[in-house]
Amino acid sequence: MSPKDTPPAPRATIRTVAADAGVSVAAVSKVLRNAYGVSDALRARVTASIEKLGYRPSKAAQGLRGRSTTVGVLLVEIGNPFLPFVIDGVQDVLAPSHYRAMIGVGRAQTHLETELVESMIDHGMAGLILVAPLLPAEVVSRYARRVPTVLVAYHEPGDTPYDTVNSDDRRGAALATEGLLARGHRDVGFLAQRSSQGRRANVATEREKGYGDAMAAAGLPPRVFDLVAPPDGREAELAAFLRRPDRPRAAVVWSDLDAIPLRGLAARAGVRVPEDLALVGYDNSPMAGFPLVDLASIDQQGREIGRQAAEALLGRIGGRSEPRHLLIEPHLVARSSL
Amino acid sequence: MSPKDTPPAPRATIRTVAADAGVSVAAVSKVLRNAYGVSDALRARVTASIEKLGYRPSKAAQGLRGRSTTVGVLLVEIGNPFLPFVIDGVQDVLAPSHYRAMIGVGRAQTHLETELVESMIDHGMAGLILVAPLLPAEVVSRYARRVPTVLVAYHEPGDTPYDTVNSDDRRGAALATEGLLARGHRDVGFLAQRSSQGRRANVATEREKGYGDAMAAAGLPPRVFDLVAPPDGREAELAAFLRRPDRPRAAVVWSDLDAIPLRGLAARAGVRVPEDLALVGYDNSPMAGFPLVDLASIDQQGREIGRQAAEALLGRIGGRSEPRHLLIEPHLVARSSL
Repeated sequence: MSPKDTPPAPRATIRTVAADAGVSVAAVSKVLRNAYGVSDALRARVTASIEKLGYRPSKAAQGLRGRSTTVGVLLVEIGNPFLPFVIDGVQDVLAPSHYRAMIGVGRAQTHLETELVESMIDHGMAGLILVAPLLPAEVVSRYARRVPTVLVAYHEPGDTPYDTVNSDDRRGAALATEGLLARGHRDVGFLAQRSSQGRRANVATEREKGYGDAMAAAGLPPRVFDLVAPPDGREAELAAFLRRPDRPRAAVVWSDLDAIPLRGLAARAGVRVPEDLALVGYDNSPMAGFPLVDLASIDQQGREIGRQAAEALLGRIGGRSEPRHLLIEPHLVARSSL
Repeated sequence: MSPKDTPPAPRATIRTVAADAGVSVAAVSKVLRNAYGVSDALRARVTASIEKLGYRPSKAAQGLRGRSTTVGVLLVEIGNPFLPFVIDGVQDVLAPSHYRAMIGVGRAQTHLETELVESMIDHGMAGLILVAPLLPAEVVSRYARRVPTVLVAYHEPGDTPYDTVNSDDRRGAALATEGLLARGHRDVGFLAQRSSQGRRANVATEREKGYGDAMAAAGLPPRVFDLVAPPDGREAELAAFLRRPDRPRAAVVWSDLDAIPLRGLAARAGVRVPEDLALVGYDNSPMAGFPLVDLASIDQQGREIGRQAAEALLGRIGGRSEPRHLLIEPHLVARSSL
């Protein structure tokens, strides 16, 4: 079942891969290192031969060159349904290379993030992908000057020593708001994530701005409702929102993490969705699409974000140093809650 | 915001921690190393002082002793809602120690599992926690003879060079079945996970046995329905199950991954739950508890499993070599689908 249990086949080498692909050994090496400027066609050709022959670069040889084949991925926390998609995308891109991802989970604690990133650097990891870290930009910059680094869900464009890959959160929330306005709603509110931790609110803040953009463009006053309890203790706050006599007729919710329980609580309280309260969530988490939930939501394209982040990191490992800041376009997935 | 941005406080040392806790430096060192035989009382006392003083063991000093402070955790895949709880439990236990977890995701591919585990060993990680790996027992044993290893969701008791921590899957499925029988159902079916990969079916096989146990004890014939499509392509199979003229009146589903979509599809098809079809899922995933879903399910206690796995690993790192095989008792969470 494992490769170890089958009789040893003649071991593929970089030379047999080159011969099979009809390219030079140097070209194979470039693809393996994901050197800057390798064409998609060359990569596809070499990758096909690598997979066909089952070639695995020798760890010892890599060690001799002093390179680690591991890339560190730091997640702000685990349990957000958006994150597995990002990891999948990272692994999609790393699979044909000899790089493998190792993940640390920061549990939304700055000191743990610091320890994990330093541990990744101590382990000689070849690069870092930091997903929505709490660490401030100057600390991230310090790490990024030591090791190739890409930030995800961290809006910090400009002349940085790292790349960023983000969903366009501001645009996404505007799309959600426009979706409700297009159905004739005028009294559209926004359920916002308030956090004492500045960085963490970053994505939520962008979304709040996007909601404001769309309301302003329609000449309507914004109504923002703050969720301040910790995410696992929000039920009471969501129920209180449903009981408000001045509850809006429609709402954009900053995340499915709150929009899905809100839809369930509405059903229990006899508040009809969308007749009494139209809802759009954010993240298009797998649950949003289940028949009983059927929540309209903004798809961030997490897998594409992960792919772009890994591509950017491989580019930096390959030698690129000028920063790249990618915004991935979100889209509205319309469902019956709208 | 980050520790780096606050003015430096006098640095806590192992001596100030010992003085604060009123114990010897050697005792603090034992707790830090999680040496075998440290009492809970001593650990609690030292941990409290470590947290109060913000003590962080020097990485350099650890390096001089040739020990890595990183523990590798291999997940069979990402996206199963059970796994974040296991990770949380592992991190709960590691937090007060100087060990940190680094996670690899095997994407249900044996060759990727092999690469990740070998990479963890190459990085000098202090121990391994392997969650539901596909690797056969003899390969796992080979790794476990090189580095302290604990297996989770891998039923392989006996005289192994590794520990195991499992939910009692057989007992859990029996509990689910008994829950339906206790409500007067006689025609109870089981929706089973069929997989071409032997090891992967392990947990699902135990659950099928538990269902058989409970039906046999009640003198009833078992009815097993196989789900054979890949998990992300099951909707058609679940819909076909709902259309069967001989559909059972109640069903235990091997996982919430299928039970939750099944409940949604039933609502869409006008099959009333529980009047026409009573359902119990498995995993008590967060979604099962949402008001619109409200699915009875078996709670595996994933966080407790993660905690026990980390405790076992720290015991092995501390010097224990005789195997431990822990079974964590699951329980039925009754909801309206029952």
